[in-house]
Amino acid sequence: MTPQKIIIDTDPGIDDAMAIFFALNSPELELIGLTTIFGNGFTDLTTTNALRLLEIAERPDIPVAVGAAQPVADRFDEPGSVVHGDDGQGNVHLPPPTAKPVDQNAAAFIIEQVMRAPREVTLVPIGPLTNIALALHLEPRIATAVREVVIMGGNALVPGNITPAAEANIFHDPEAADTVFGTSWPVTMVGLDVTQKTVMSSEQLGKLAQSTTATAQHLSAIIPFYQDFTLKANKFHGIYLHDPTTLAYLVAKDAFQTLQRPVRVETQGFSRGKTWIANDQTNKWSTAWQNRPPVNVCIGVNGPQISDLILERLM
Amino acid sequence: MTPQKIIIDTDPGIDDAMAIFFALNSPELELIGLTTIFGNGFTDLTTTNALRLLEIAERPDIPVAVGAAQPVADRFDEPGSVVHGDDGQGNVHLPPPTAKPVDQNAAAFIIEQVMRAPREVTLVPIGPLTNIALALHLEPRIATAVREVVIMGGNALVPGNITPAAEANIFHDPEAADTVFGTSWPVTMVGLDVTQKTVMSSEQLGKLAQSTTATAQHLSAIIPFYQDFTLKANKFHGIYLHDPTTLAYLVAKDAFQTLQRPVRVETQGFSRGKTWIANDQTNKWSTAWQNRPPVNVCIGVNGPQISDLILERLM
Repeated sequence: MTPQKIIIDTDPGIDDAMAIFFALNSPELELIGLTTIFGNGFTDLTTTNALRLLEIAERPDIPVAVGAAQPVADRFDEPGSVVHGDDGQGNVHLPPPTAKPVDQNAAAFIIEQVMRAPREVTLVPIGPLTNIALALHLEPRIATAVREVVIMGGNALVPGNITPAAEANIFHDPEAADTVFGTSWPVTMVGLDVTQKTVMSSEQLGKLAQSTTATAQHLSAIIPFYQDFTLKANKFHGIYLHDPTTLAYLVAKDAFQTLQRPVRVETQGFSRGKTWIANDQTNKWSTAWQNRPPVNVCIGVNGPQISDLILERLM
Repeated sequence: MTPQKIIIDTDPGIDDAMAIFFALNSPELELIGLTTIFGNGFTDLTTTNALRLLEIAERPDIPVAVGAAQPVADRFDEPGSVVHGDDGQGNVHLPPPTAKPVDQNAAAFIIEQVMRAPREVTLVPIGPLTNIALALHLEPRIATAVREVVIMGGNALVPGNITPAAEANIFHDPEAADTVFGTSWPVTMVGLDVTQKTVMSSEQLGKLAQSTTATAQHLSAIIPFYQDFTLKANKFHGIYLHDPTTLAYLVAKDAFQTLQRPVRVETQGFSRGKTWIANDQTNKWSTAWQNRPPVNVCIGVNGPQISDLILERLM
């Protein structure tokens, strides 16, 4: 079986590192590039981290393309360092990478890769959706040329994690997210509805620490920072597997329950960044969901199955 | 035990009729007045229905005060006749009532009753919150003089029923609702989180039809209209007990699970009317919930216990 070509659009980030290593360790997937975005850090830092992570994995051949520094319609000025560390990697302060990003921005890289191999390339954005929206604006034909788009972001039926309303990735560029969910292409939303049901326990993290691979060793060095935050914020001793769960969806779709519904992203008020799924009964009072394509929204998951799969691949 | 004095602020409405008759049949409660509001119909119709319902119950002595015709900051122009009938009572088209409303508007009536008997009167709004917000604007001291405020409205952790975001009562006057939830007084929110878990089955409705009281006979005449709507919209053969559940809360609090959290009502975008409960972890990114008093938010209920109680009282 030919592995599925994927581009991960990412803001590493601790769970981003887990997602990237999961992809590199999965024979079903062929990582053809990383594109970078702000979120867990500013884009210059997340680009440096993307290069560093590929060097740790001994895959400096994989191209890294630099993404947008700011959202399409707002201003980003507060990276997620409280969750991921000032260096985005748990404050381990790695040396600078030797490799350099490619001479093409993230949107251009995405467009070239998708158009070159129609219906072969899957986009996996696990940060704010700015680069994906820009790529759609610059070349709308990627919508029919892409194989699939699998997004870490949003909250359909559960509360937000950055405001009471919103999940962090969507919150950091709601206008871009509304463009992406409003495009007629095969989009799956892997949001908090499932990623907060996919937890790695401290026992599982103990097992990961026993692996001697360079990637597992790096993860074991950076995860404690994220674990401390989780204990303070969410009062449990494990971690949520937001980003790696999104990659795991590609290799274990049967473990997920989904709904097919139009999605709107609120851009107004203190609900800004909320992903609302349409509801058949209530169309009369709001036209906001009319003429919007269905999105494949994950609402349930076999959490233990997915966390076991992620642990196995990261060992 | 002295019964608890209550004023029901209401827009009858089929389940409003159930709520009013529940109150009249409950020895724990003393209904000292009805105030009327738009929602299931325009206010002139809901006032007529309030008078009609008290006559059916042979309690024309209970005062009815006419409430606002329009929301505090918006325009109301589409009553819920698809759910409750053009007459708000399942299209049974009752004769006009002989009694008249009192010569005092709803807000003035509420203020006078609450200030006259400090810490004795409970307000039970089961329609849009316009009258309650107006009463607070006109006499802020009702906040400390009231015994309790128990509201049918909102959706904390479940989707809306009039838009994907909003519950109908809150949607029809979100600015008023945000005033009411932002006031420091003992407010309980009985929203869709519990009222959609409190269902009267067609079997229970069959039992109700066997009661020969005038009130039960009236309910059995009007409920089929609401039941037809529920079958079309929600695909089941019973009815949701939104309004009577709110009255039942007063006599069976132990059947409900609650959270104490500040509540904000969104007034912007297509999230308009959504009731958001605060979340300790996410305060940093939104100041909207700061300095807001906690609201007692119902999030769980023993549905069968409450529907049995309601049926028993309505027989």
